[in-house]
Amino acid sequence: MRFVIIGGDAAGMSAASRAKRLDPSLEVIVLEQTRDVSYSACGMPYNIADPVRSMDDLVVRPADVFRQKTGIDVRTRNRVERINAAKGTVEGIADDTRAFELAYDRLLLATGAKPMIPDIPGFDLPGVMALKSLDQGRQIKAFIANNAVRRVLIIGMGYIALEMGEALRARDIDVEIVKPRPDLLPWMDRELAGTVQQELTENQVRLHFGRAVERIECSGDRLAVLDGDASTIMDHAVEMVLVAIGVQPVSELAAQAGLGLGPGQAIAVDRQMRTADDRIYAAGDCADAFHVVTGHKVWIPLALRANRAGWAVADHLCGKPVNIAGVAGTAVFKVFDLQVARTGLTTSEAAEAGFDPVAVTIAARSRAHAHPGGSRIQVHMVGDRQSGRLLGAQMVGREGVAHRINAAAVALHAAMSVEQFAQCDLSYAPPFGGVWDPLLVAANQLIKLI
Amino acid sequence: MRFVIIGGDAAGMSAASRAKRLDPSLEVIVLEQTRDVSYSACGMPYNIADPVRSMDDLVVRPADVFRQKTGIDVRTRNRVERINAAKGTVEGIADDTRAFELAYDRLLLATGAKPMIPDIPGFDLPGVMALKSLDQGRQIKAFIANNAVRRVLIIGMGYIALEMGEALRARDIDVEIVKPRPDLLPWMDRELAGTVQQELTENQVRLHFGRAVERIECSGDRLAVLDGDASTIMDHAVEMVLVAIGVQPVSELAAQAGLGLGPGQAIAVDRQMRTADDRIYAAGDCADAFHVVTGHKVWIPLALRANRAGWAVADHLCGKPVNIAGVAGTAVFKVFDLQVARTGLTTSEAAEAGFDPVAVTIAARSRAHAHPGGSRIQVHMVGDRQSGRLLGAQMVGREGVAHRINAAAVALHAAMSVEQFAQCDLSYAPPFGGVWDPLLVAANQLIKLI
Repeated sequence: MRFVIIGGDAAGMSAASRAKRLDPSLEVIVLEQTRDVSYSACGMPYNIADPVRSMDDLVVRPADVFRQKTGIDVRTRNRVERINAAKGTVEGIADDTRAFELAYDRLLLATGAKPMIPDIPGFDLPGVMALKSLDQGRQIKAFIANNAVRRVLIIGMGYIALEMGEALRARDIDVEIVKPRPDLLPWMDRELAGTVQQELTENQVRLHFGRAVERIECSGDRLAVLDGDASTIMDHAVEMVLVAIGVQPVSELAAQAGLGLGPGQAIAVDRQMRTADDRIYAAGDCADAFHVVTGHKVWIPLALRANRAGWAVADHLCGKPVNIAGVAGTAVFKVFDLQVARTGLTTSEAAEAGFDPVAVTIAARSRAHAHPGGSRIQVHMVGDRQSGRLLGAQMVGREGVAHRINAAAVALHAAMSVEQFAQCDLSYAPPFGGVWDPLLVAANQLIKLI
Repeated sequence: MRFVIIGGDAAGMSAASRAKRLDPSLEVIVLEQTRDVSYSACGMPYNIADPVRSMDDLVVRPADVFRQKTGIDVRTRNRVERINAAKGTVEGIADDTRAFELAYDRLLLATGAKPMIPDIPGFDLPGVMALKSLDQGRQIKAFIANNAVRRVLIIGMGYIALEMGEALRARDIDVEIVKPRPDLLPWMDRELAGTVQQELTENQVRLHFGRAVERIECSGDRLAVLDGDASTIMDHAVEMVLVAIGVQPVSELAAQAGLGLGPGQAIAVDRQMRTADDRIYAAGDCADAFHVVTGHKVWIPLALRANRAGWAVADHLCGKPVNIAGVAGTAVFKVFDLQVARTGLTTSEAAEAGFDPVAVTIAARSRAHAHPGGSRIQVHMVGDRQSGRLLGAQMVGREGVAHRINAAAVALHAAMSVEQFAQCDLSYAPPFGGVWDPLLVAANQLIKLI
């Protein structure tokens, strides 16, 4: 049997490796349009922060090593342009020159996501960059080195924008960030978002809210970024503009093949990762998922899910029972010295899903009250007034946030009530927190409102 | 109604405060035998590590402030010597001089635990100390200062012994630790325990296994510690011997009053924290609990449970429904730069409880593979071969252990299978771990064995 995979990153290579391990007789072919497979995309901002390290450090295993060691037929620079589902083939172009057609018994779409690039004048100028593929990372890093970049404007304020802001500040580059909406991280509780905003400001990241970029122009050998009134957003022109307004699933091939799409135009899959065509799977950032709290379809592109979904495809293909769990949307990112984390629903997502949400925001210490070196941890927690169920949590702090959030994530998977969660026996020692973990402090407060 | 509480630390003061808040008309009297109420006992080693800080920093709220601000009648230096359950009174001695008898409507035994002191020659010599009460902490700190202590022998290798070892090393005091059994932290997986042992050795803590202390003698103005062969355990005499061989519940009053005792001679309580006498509650380190995995009675004295049980007593007393959850035995402690954590059952505890345990030990990185500054995290995970259920976990590492363990703790409360736990959507970002959290790596391995 031939298993063809389109896309050689997290989901694709996870599926390829596991399928080949489970069934060595399987012919596994990976078609990857770039030069790189199996790299840590999430590590790119941290790599860019360090002028010395090579971007190739992020490659877990190069394509040729894969071919030699695993028997997986990894074909880089192979771009698929069409799926012929009736015929069971994919058609594409290799090395930008040779057309190919390849038959499959089973096909996996692991095409990932791509940065959204607004269709307005100047976005094709040199120095206007986006970060998704490793090659884009290499280009950004080379551009900074070759153009003695001192000033960068980032368009968009999501977590990739903020991580890149930190990376550039680490290289002592001036950073300004602009977005059309009036608030930072709008999904986040306002108190917690205020802490993040303060951290950015204290690290000399200048934020411009409520201003939409309408045009980018050359200004000498630099770039001027203009809003709707044709006034420049910054005082100075910049050497580089980073576009980080968000990503979208790469689902065009699937749409053309008549496979159904779900939220955010992601490829719709069932709990066995199958699309509408039972010979075609989809997994990773291009596919949708069930939310573990609502049971509704969502599109939340995150790396762990991509890996896990790739494994699920391999298991199903090899005849193992598969019933992949929902996603909780658990995520963490670093903003300078802050750890920012979330899991589950916000109050507005909860209301939209038909819950009757109630929330608290509390502050606690990251270490016991008398222990030196502690700092503030803020927790925002959402529950359902009707059922008492825990619906979501957000946290911000300088330490002890990134992994603490997982306790709440597991509680969401277990559909625990806030009261049940508040009874959980969590760890305590003075260097690591107070007797009542900040999550328990929040849960104890939330119980009173339910 | 008069609510009398014996013991003014975690459980006692939690119960007093909450009961008074829920029902201000309640007469609440706390009888505490020492001078101190409501202090962080767990913070004492860290305070002793710092010669400058006062031990009083650990007092959350002094007794007189409690009296003034809360209306709780806190009576320090009031030692209860007898419960007359038939009559509904307690009898005791105040200030070592005045006998008192006090009637109660409801009584809470929050008498805590006390260090075990072996009954062998020399344990009453000056310089032989134990750490449990704040006064004992003050005495140790004063003794170190007044006697220019340079060498200490610690008897016992539990977590208090190890924390004290670290505290004394921070003051550049030579530390040796002795125990009669042949292994460090016998409840722990041997690989993980090896890491802890290495950390102790690298920090110049000398460990003596398999040697039982039989006698302590004066040796000039110092102390010589002798084993069964009457040979000294160390090369040199020491100024101080710290006895940390374990604690036992203070349950004599309860036993005398005919209340039932459970595991470890702890006072037996139901899920409403009631003893065999329905006017008498017990909570905190003196009381037993149901284990959340086995459902069996256990005695696991830990601070969070003490606080939570105190609250449960107040709730029940004030007519709120109470059904306290079991304990998972989740604990973390610091050993120099290591974080050491556990939750749930070990394989031997699991076998004893009738499970068919199977376990894995894995090592993972604390940060993503290409992220600088990462270190090793070891995870030991136990599951049940029959039911597939997650039974317990242990972790050791330099970062990201103390709070990570809580994800497994919540899974134990939810009675998750290892497979369900492996499907949980945990957080990921390169500075905080790999895509697959170390707990998930362990769970994925454990699944293969179940």
